[in-house]
Amino acid sequence: MEKTNVLIIGGGASGLQAAISAKANYPDKSVLVVRQEDKVLVPCGIPYIFGSLHSSDKNILPDKMLTDIGVDIKIAEVTQVDVKNNVCMLANDKKIYFEKLIFATGSIPTLPKWLKGGELENVFVIPKNKHYLDEMHIKLKPLKKVITIGAGFIGVEISDEMNKAGWDVTLVEIEPSILNRAFDKEFGDKAEELLTSRGVKVITGIGVKEIVGKDGKVSKVILTSGEELEADAVVLSMGYIPNTELAEKSGIGLNKYGFIKTCEYMRVDDCSSDIFAVGDCAEKRDFLTRKLNATMLASTACAEARVAGMSLYELSPCKAFSGTIAIYDTMIGDTAFGTAGIIESKAKEEKFSVVVGSFTGMDKHPGTLEGMHAQTVKLIVAADCGMIIGGEVCGGSSVGELTNSIGFLIQSHTNIKSLLTAQIGTHPMLTGSPAAYPLIKAAEIIVKKLKK
Amino acid sequence: MEKTNVLIIGGGASGLQAAISAKANYPDKSVLVVRQEDKVLVPCGIPYIFGSLHSSDKNILPDKMLTDIGVDIKIAEVTQVDVKNNVCMLANDKKIYFEKLIFATGSIPTLPKWLKGGELENVFVIPKNKHYLDEMHIKLKPLKKVITIGAGFIGVEISDEMNKAGWDVTLVEIEPSILNRAFDKEFGDKAEELLTSRGVKVITGIGVKEIVGKDGKVSKVILTSGEELEADAVVLSMGYIPNTELAEKSGIGLNKYGFIKTCEYMRVDDCSSDIFAVGDCAEKRDFLTRKLNATMLASTACAEARVAGMSLYELSPCKAFSGTIAIYDTMIGDTAFGTAGIIESKAKEEKFSVVVGSFTGMDKHPGTLEGMHAQTVKLIVAADCGMIIGGEVCGGSSVGELTNSIGFLIQSHTNIKSLLTAQIGTHPMLTGSPAAYPLIKAAEIIVKKLKK
Repeated sequence: MEKTNVLIIGGGASGLQAAISAKANYPDKSVLVVRQEDKVLVPCGIPYIFGSLHSSDKNILPDKMLTDIGVDIKIAEVTQVDVKNNVCMLANDKKIYFEKLIFATGSIPTLPKWLKGGELENVFVIPKNKHYLDEMHIKLKPLKKVITIGAGFIGVEISDEMNKAGWDVTLVEIEPSILNRAFDKEFGDKAEELLTSRGVKVITGIGVKEIVGKDGKVSKVILTSGEELEADAVVLSMGYIPNTELAEKSGIGLNKYGFIKTCEYMRVDDCSSDIFAVGDCAEKRDFLTRKLNATMLASTACAEARVAGMSLYELSPCKAFSGTIAIYDTMIGDTAFGTAGIIESKAKEEKFSVVVGSFTGMDKHPGTLEGMHAQTVKLIVAADCGMIIGGEVCGGSSVGELTNSIGFLIQSHTNIKSLLTAQIGTHPMLTGSPAAYPLIKAAEIIVKKLKK
Repeated sequence: MEKTNVLIIGGGASGLQAAISAKANYPDKSVLVVRQEDKVLVPCGIPYIFGSLHSSDKNILPDKMLTDIGVDIKIAEVTQVDVKNNVCMLANDKKIYFEKLIFATGSIPTLPKWLKGGELENVFVIPKNKHYLDEMHIKLKPLKKVITIGAGFIGVEISDEMNKAGWDVTLVEIEPSILNRAFDKEFGDKAEELLTSRGVKVITGIGVKEIVGKDGKVSKVILTSGEELEADAVVLSMGYIPNTELAEKSGIGLNKYGFIKTCEYMRVDDCSSDIFAVGDCAEKRDFLTRKLNATMLASTACAEARVAGMSLYELSPCKAFSGTIAIYDTMIGDTAFGTAGIIESKAKEEKFSVVVGSFTGMDKHPGTLEGMHAQTVKLIVAADCGMIIGGEVCGGSSVGELTNSIGFLIQSHTNIKSLLTAQIGTHPMLTGSPAAYPLIKAAEIIVKKLKK
């Protein structure tokens, strides 16, 4: 029987990062990644296959990142895990003995049962699967009218990219604003305005009732309002569910949303020390509400994978992962949106008393410099103690790193008054001005409100 | 006699920010800014006047930022402060009574006494003075060969901008690498390589002996090596000294480098509660070594101004400013450099035992995306406790905000292991990939070294 010290099931972002971290922390241990795909896609790059990148071949996670550091890769399907005896069964009937196992089986797209017409030809989902996406891309090429359903960030990005590449795109979202899980309405409305100005038709506040076909192929989409939209193809971006069938049939505990139950060191269920789960398949709790949540982000997945990779043979308290902050970004044209922590509407819904401050300035200074983009920063602060618990940003190409700054402020429990007098660096070409840096100005507004 | 609650002397970045903060914290108090300049320049934008901006008119700090919030501005010269009686004397013999006074008198360029030829025509310094710079710009226009002396960030930026605008520029720096106060040699060498590739001639490790004139005008520069460089003009960027003559003659205590002595609430000398000093004229201590230092940055100045503005009539302990982190950035072409906290060479010189980690990745992912720029992050960590004490970055347009992230990590005393498992956000167009984000990869390298 083949043996390895550390076995990782799944080769996506979390599996890759788990292998890197395992090898970094325990260089003498053998690490094996078992995955089904011959080539792995960069998950966040998937929407760009249909536009900017032109092809999935430009969106591959290089195996070299693993092979260079001595991690082995096996293309195979795991059919069962014998957790008592530390053995994995493969589809070819071979077995692998492991000391430590990490589930990194990811997620699969939702295709809701209530949606009539989901089985029709030219109805697509967006799995992290190169063969599926390549075939979808070929089928889409001769088609014209595409309806995308669901305006989370994947739906928004794929709509924008397909529009850019020449398709006639209509994005349908049942909620009153797009990106509404991650952004307050004013940011969602701004994103909608941008999408519309670039040529994507956006319908919000109305759901999809049915997809209608003709000769087995999509012909139209009927909305809950009764309106009918002609369609040559439908792309469903209605979310993902954890891919945990293997874990379940191997007797690993799942939570009520189907995620593998984990502790803060990413050990499964009973915190036994040999089985871990990371990434989209693993349970997440909100950092603030402590409720279970369903955030699926490659960046969160990688942070979890680093914790697991470090904690395989020994635990370190400063390595624990205390709930999901959910930091991420999206981009429409040259305008980027970033979010970290809780948003205002959600905070209120969850009964946090919050004070918010929002400031719009510039991302270069003076504003006369070429390429200057307006930059808005909104901060959400706990009213009772002044702790920063969330932030939203809209601006140019520096939004990603600025959002990460806010993420770090949240993770270090920074008080808004400390932020107000924090030192920053500024540069004409790279940031707002020292006296009107939007992050600090937003803090100024909040401190003023707290004084009252 | 004219009266005001709060009087600020100086209208640059720190004076502007002090006025804004004073008004934000004490909206019922009258705030008056007295300054000599009719128009105030954005300080960090000055090098760009000679290239990207074409004119100083595009580099003005708008008075509207003050007048809109009810701050008064008076164009006048203060000749003396009677600190016992809270009265300022002006050059026109008028007087102003104040409750609280903030010195924000800034800095003036160094023109070293030992440098022969400094008085010649077409030898320029770079003061924050619109009239001087406009005249300099006109005089420079017909000239061709420019020698810039001193490769701090002002010298580097002005050399690059003047080269871009068509002048034949040679930059001379006595230290072995450029930008050497803020960056370790590998970053300085990279910056030098970029400057050279763009057409600036760079001479390092050799000083200037003398500027030689003909008919009262510059004709050549003689280096300490004996080499002679033909020159139509010389731009001295050899640093700045605090502008504290007024403070000194008013009996305010200065430290040995000529800065106004201040406490951590930016009150002068004896911590009496009516007189404050902020910005380039105010004393600074290194956040780590606690030694006096001479950092002059608009962003640091504004942080100090926020502390002073908040602390005018009451003190708040979470508003204290505990030493200067010195966070800043510069840009050469499309490559940006950022630094925060202590650099490796300086840390070793100061006898800190440090562990460093450096990783070069990409600022977009996958790397096949258009506009991708290589991104290097180097972190400096205290070997005994794992605290992050410095960082350097080289990359594209996101460097400014990424450097600020490192600044926040330093200011919150983040341990390198906490950073390693911190959550970040990533996006194809905006950041490195979740499994190869350079900031986290640098942390990974350091944690591995600390384990040994």
